[in-house]
Amino acid sequence: MTTDSECIFCKIVAGDIPAEKIHEDERTVAFMDVNPGTRGHALVIPKNHTKDLLEIAPDELAAVTQAGQAVARRAVERLGADGINLLNCCGSEAWQTVFHFHLHVVPRYVDDPLQLPWIPAPGEPDEIAETAALLRE
Amino acid sequence: MTTDSECIFCKIVAGDIPAEKIHEDERTVAFMDVNPGTRGHALVIPKNHTKDLLEIAPDELAAVTQAGQAVARRAVERLGADGINLLNCCGSEAWQTVFHFHLHVVPRYVDDPLQLPWIPAPGEPDEIAETAALLRE
Ligand SMILES: [Zn+2]
Ligand SMILES: [Zn+2]
Repeated sequence: MTTDSECIFCKIVAGDIPAEKIHEDERTVAFMDVNPGTRGHALVIPKNHTKDLLEIAPDELAAVTQAGQAVARRAVERLGADGINLLNCCGSEAWQTVFHFHLHVVPRYVDDPLQLPWIPAPGEPDEIAETAALLRE
Repeated sequence: MTTDSECIFCKIVAGDIPAEKIHEDERTVAFMDVNPGTRGHALVIPKNHTKDLLEIAPDELAAVTQAGQAVARRAVERLGADGINLLNCCGSEAWQTVFHFHLHVVPRYVDDPLQLPWIPAPGEPDEIAETAALLRE
């Protein structure tokens, strides 16, 4: 596995820093965004360190997207989401801030106020933990 | 192939209505968005009619995403894009307006003014055609 010892998402994969993980398979991990745009906002990443959409191997991209679909389904079934946005940001100019590929899974709700880019602000940890418990396999 | 005779994207796949196609493979078609958020904004769709992220088969989702990666690469190499957003909108509450699965590939440029949701407005057809010529295989 390719790892970057400076990368916060690689540390989450390794379990070296905590995260509310909700899904893990051979190639991917999904966990709650600590700055959620909406309730249930999650990130899906490849376990291999890979910078962005231009670098990720096509089979890993497929695995991440399919895991994102599974998480999206759970958000609809278990959180009552009315819609979903999948978003990838490739490059600073496209709002990427962590340079380990990640796919945002953003549950949407009737009349939620989401706009992009959203202003990142920390969510309430207990609420995130509670939502994570619902989304976990 | 699954087709919905009322669906505008199915008609684009069939060639029954015109579109600036830039990519086609066994399972997917990519073409320019007529209401571009930025220069080079394209859509990738499965040839099979499938409503949204919750309905699309995982292997078709992978094919669409991988085609989106290929289009993204061309936008960087040929249009000089500084970044890329991939976006899927699943459900009206998530800004979906055409109910045939589509992945937005939105090239980004330094200091472009893109926000989401963008206000759809028709692009200039000649400029879209010119950009399509650059993005075509
Ligand atoms: Zn990493
Ligand atoms: Zn269709």
